[in-house]
Amino acid sequence: METTKFMLSEREMPTHWYNVLPDLPAPLPPPLHPGTGQPLGPADLARLFPMELIKQEVSPERSIEIPEEIQQLYRLWRPTPLFRAHRLEKALGTPARIFYKYEGGSPAGSHKLNTAVAQVYYNKQEGVRRLATETGAGQWGSALALACQFFGLQCKVYMVQSSYHQKPYRRVLMETWGARVVPSPSEDTNAGRTIRALDRDSPGSLGIAISEAVEDAASHDDTKYSLGSVLNHVLLHQTVIGLEAKKQMEMAGLYPDVIVGCIGGGSNFAGTFLPFVKDKIDGKNLRIVCVEPEACPSLTKGVCAYDFGDTAKLTPLLRMYTLGHSFVPPRIHAGGLRYHGMAPIVSHLYHLKVVEAVAVHQLATFEAAVTFARAEGILPAPEPSHAIKVTIDEALKCKESGEKKTILLALSGHGHFDLGAYDEFLSGKLKDYEYPTELVKKALEELPKVG
Amino acid sequence: METTKFMLSEREMPTHWYNVLPDLPAPLPPPLHPGTGQPLGPADLARLFPMELIKQEVSPERSIEIPEEIQQLYRLWRPTPLFRAHRLEKALGTPARIFYKYEGGSPAGSHKLNTAVAQVYYNKQEGVRRLATETGAGQWGSALALACQFFGLQCKVYMVQSSYHQKPYRRVLMETWGARVVPSPSEDTNAGRTIRALDRDSPGSLGIAISEAVEDAASHDDTKYSLGSVLNHVLLHQTVIGLEAKKQMEMAGLYPDVIVGCIGGGSNFAGTFLPFVKDKIDGKNLRIVCVEPEACPSLTKGVCAYDFGDTAKLTPLLRMYTLGHSFVPPRIHAGGLRYHGMAPIVSHLYHLKVVEAVAVHQLATFEAAVTFARAEGILPAPEPSHAIKVTIDEALKCKESGEKKTILLALSGHGHFDLGAYDEFLSGKLKDYEYPTELVKKALEELPKVG
Repeated sequence: METTKFMLSEREMPTHWYNVLPDLPAPLPPPLHPGTGQPLGPADLARLFPMELIKQEVSPERSIEIPEEIQQLYRLWRPTPLFRAHRLEKALGTPARIFYKYEGGSPAGSHKLNTAVAQVYYNKQEGVRRLATETGAGQWGSALALACQFFGLQCKVYMVQSSYHQKPYRRVLMETWGARVVPSPSEDTNAGRTIRALDRDSPGSLGIAISEAVEDAASHDDTKYSLGSVLNHVLLHQTVIGLEAKKQMEMAGLYPDVIVGCIGGGSNFAGTFLPFVKDKIDGKNLRIVCVEPEACPSLTKGVCAYDFGDTAKLTPLLRMYTLGHSFVPPRIHAGGLRYHGMAPIVSHLYHLKVVEAVAVHQLATFEAAVTFARAEGILPAPEPSHAIKVTIDEALKCKESGEKKTILLALSGHGHFDLGAYDEFLSGKLKDYEYPTELVKKALEELPKVG
Repeated sequence: METTKFMLSEREMPTHWYNVLPDLPAPLPPPLHPGTGQPLGPADLARLFPMELIKQEVSPERSIEIPEEIQQLYRLWRPTPLFRAHRLEKALGTPARIFYKYEGGSPAGSHKLNTAVAQVYYNKQEGVRRLATETGAGQWGSALALACQFFGLQCKVYMVQSSYHQKPYRRVLMETWGARVVPSPSEDTNAGRTIRALDRDSPGSLGIAISEAVEDAASHDDTKYSLGSVLNHVLLHQTVIGLEAKKQMEMAGLYPDVIVGCIGGGSNFAGTFLPFVKDKIDGKNLRIVCVEPEACPSLTKGVCAYDFGDTAKLTPLLRMYTLGHSFVPPRIHAGGLRYHGMAPIVSHLYHLKVVEAVAVHQLATFEAAVTFARAEGILPAPEPSHAIKVTIDEALKCKESGEKKTILLALSGHGHFDLGAYDEFLSGKLKDYEYPTELVKKALEELPKVG
């Protein structure tokens, strides 16, 4: 009998997060103060984040202990399974060995809960009573809503308007867990009102929603801001995925030749590949493939520069691949990938050619998602379906070449709330969005002049 | 640290289903031929079911081996976790120890896949190429769609119309897995057309949808019929739930004082409690509480009689608690509980007072569901929320009495496709349906005169 599922016991779960900062081949460019152009100090971030998360953001420690209360919550859905995709391999007729690490079994439906419970924990420790955040497809907002409910904090979610209407069940889920949800741009903030004055029908973007949530936090004494991706501490929390996956690949007796994941802000995939990246830096033959949407291709078509994390220029400046903070991506269903920038750590590793990137079109990702769902059962979210598309491409290359490559796919969440998009695809109504060359060109002209 | 989750290894998974028939304190009344009133022979069922399932339906063997191919598929989502609901206990302030066995982690979202893969396997063994079935809320239809996809069979699903419109994502899910789905009553069968001629806006019922699927199977040579609950072989396949739960309760070092589950056709809960029932028959102090909706209370308000399993009187006669085969239940959101009858095994055990029953209202179940979701994270389906309501009641009784009872809750599925109902509840629009006394009275007058 072939093994399909590799499970760790709770005792084998990571007790520490892995911090890549000390292992990077070159130091990560620091965030800058937008006014002075100088590197930020901890105090500059204290209005938005609790001190413990700020410390994690710049920690030189390779290993950071996971507090017991967080480990206890992790055990509600962790360790997560690593599957060998025997049935997909057979359907494709490939000699490749495909594994997927599945994070969709968390109650919130994705990897996002890994960092949500950690962030809320540290905020609670510092006496914070309310958190404001943005969400794209709703995966992050759901996770933070549930984590706030676990710890008894209030939660306000600015949900990108295009997703708010595409995925109404996500809003209800957040409300069930006690959060307040408004479509962004909203009338609740200056940032939102400004955009709406220019375009009442703006589909919104993660950049706009971040502006609203940051403004909300900055203007309420009891409130801090919580970000679901991009920042170092978020990627840090997500390394539980890769730490588990590495042990599970050992159980399977194989080491990946290729690791594939989708990137929006970068946290799910970085969480998966970072525990493998030192091996690659040390010379291991390993490809790490970041997959992004053609409609919002920050690594493959963006520039590496200091830019704002949000549209209203409220955040610090981060050195990253960006399409420009004012860029509003087309309304693709993978709402979690509609972000103009990219995690500084992922950007840095791409710049250093440690990881590579490829952009794919929406229709092809849904075709791959349906192939996957029919073979493996699990219905993937549109975001990781980008990675499935490239995984299938890699497996088909192996079919041609006869190579028995080992592919590890980061399957970050389920698509139970994305069936409206599946319906469009199955009925032939789904379309691709071309890369919006002119919009990006215009947005890149607005990059800040620093760094 | 308190243990939250009790997991079995794959090696500890059941290799055999448990057949309760030889352990019943009195023999189960046999199904009767509707024409002759005589007990059915295997040949009478062969038009609808493969012979191996017919054998299981009447098997005298206590233990039936699970074929390796089915075990292999089970491993995609099994063993399923048993959780200790520490957070719910704390929220309620109860000394009771609440455990829940969660089946919602299967790709189809519920326990239904346990029997779906088994049924499709045996059909495939006999060369069947197409299956027809009914579905209420869509849990069963999704499961059969996926199982048919796994084995390469075609699948036609008659989905109860009220659910078809309440839960559109369920249809898309079935279509993603390759099934054809029509709202029932449909124009595709005589049974459907007859109902529609009388009432174009009929909300449908499981009884009507079963008629359509049975007629479809009987009128296509390559097609057999597949039922998601009620019959002995379906309950048999579901015993993997209880067999696992029993081992997991041993891991926790406790034996349940009360087992609570929802019943529509009865398979999820029977699958959970049957492996415990012999202990109770042998004198163990154990309560088994079946929870049904006030709007469709077959055990608490129905009569024990021979009746048809469907509206159009196409099925054999089963001895069961029934509200009458022509009864069309109100449009409660727990579509899986909108069935006029009850599994003969559950009916028999209720008749023998081995299990007890209670009926609850829709609003109270959603209130319980939200309490559960906020404490434990998992968003329950409306069906098991009926059991959650009674579990909470039992736990609150313990709070009053100070008893440290151990409660085992059968949590059969997630509510990701039921968020429309949650939205109604949260916005104060959800309402209760009174028990439809007159409708049932009328339906009971139409009971067949046999047995």
